[in-house]
Amino acid sequence: MYYINSLDRLINQLTRLPGIGERSARRLAFYILKQPQQEAARLVDAIKTVKERVKRCSICNNFSEEDPCPICRDEKRNRSVICVVEEPQDVFLFERIREYQGLYHVLGGAISPLKGINPESLNINSLLKRVENGGVKEVILATDPDTEGEATAIYLFKLLQSLRVKVSRLAHGLPAGGDLEFADEITLTHALRGRKEMEEEWEI
Amino acid sequence: MYYINSLDRLINQLTRLPGIGERSARRLAFYILKQPQQEAARLVDAIKTVKERVKRCSICNNFSEEDPCPICRDEKRNRSVICVVEEPQDVFLFERIREYQGLYHVLGGAISPLKGINPESLNINSLLKRVENGGVKEVILATDPDTEGEATAIYLFKLLQSLRVKVSRLAHGLPAGGDLEFADEITLTHALRGRKEMEEEWEI
Repeated sequence: MYYINSLDRLINQLTRLPGIGERSARRLAFYILKQPQQEAARLVDAIKTVKERVKRCSICNNFSEEDPCPICRDEKRNRSVICVVEEPQDVFLFERIREYQGLYHVLGGAISPLKGINPESLNINSLLKRVENGGVKEVILATDPDTEGEATAIYLFKLLQSLRVKVSRLAHGLPAGGDLEFADEITLTHALRGRKEMEEEWEI
Repeated sequence: MYYINSLDRLINQLTRLPGIGERSARRLAFYILKQPQQEAARLVDAIKTVKERVKRCSICNNFSEEDPCPICRDEKRNRSVICVVEEPQDVFLFERIREYQGLYHVLGGAISPLKGINPESLNINSLLKRVENGGVKEVILATDPDTEGEATAIYLFKLLQSLRVKVSRLAHGLPAGGDLEFADEITLTHALRGRKEMEEEWEI
């Protein structure tokens, strides 16, 4: 059987990445083999640099090259609102829409007894401390709209209630650009219950 | 805007890989960030090692850690047959079916005036030399069954004709497990023209 040790090892490493099956891994590995040395070196350097430089922010737990992160340090941001998300990439999604001006708090996942993730394994205590320290008027629970995200939101809501802070949850409803036909029953129920009266200056 | 320099650079490098869009690149980059250092180091090392160790075989032009490659060196293989393929990964596909016992020759692509690939940019001279050196009875042209692969096969056939060697081309026809309904017209034409009489010991 045709077999190149180091190539096989690379294919193996690549299949460990999310969404990369054996076939994609092979295609990627052969591509890397054919790349000029310089180009492969750039990829290697980018991986090494990201692992060296990027740490967690000690306040919000988001990925950052500095501590505190630029968002936690930014005096122009609204420090009275904290948006709680599961993962660092969720912060990226919010920042991209340029709609939110408050701070973040990254839990590091959602409560999931099946996956062995209990509340103690998440960054919940640090969130409570931030709220206890005062100045926070609203906590937006932006965990995923799935079972685990909902359970986490309910758990956090109960903890935050005693701290006299407004707690909100992202709106559920129909996704933009969708087709009613493809909306599942829960989404449609949410959309119906959360319906809003239309006014003159209706925003899309 | 939320922006981490080194993360952005990694995402950028990853999007240069085939089949990796911006979204996949972001997912991969965040995954790499979350990996233990050791695991990311393994990926980096696998890329570096493959680039250091894997070269081209000076006989068949296939990727190999040794020169000549293990296939060209293997005395058990049938040295009178050469299977000509476009890329090194094609050798992998043939070896996997464990059906072929001859040698290979990797062209490094197919003739494509549109992509600026002319016969001079392919490893054609070295193939002719191998045949001229004698001992080769058959050359199997296993270039892709697309326009460029067909053109390359015809080009090679003309060159090889004068060298008094048998030249064959992979059979065209219906793919296994397929449905007649999904066969394109050219494939169906090939399948009809290449039809074979069934015998007692018909092999599937």
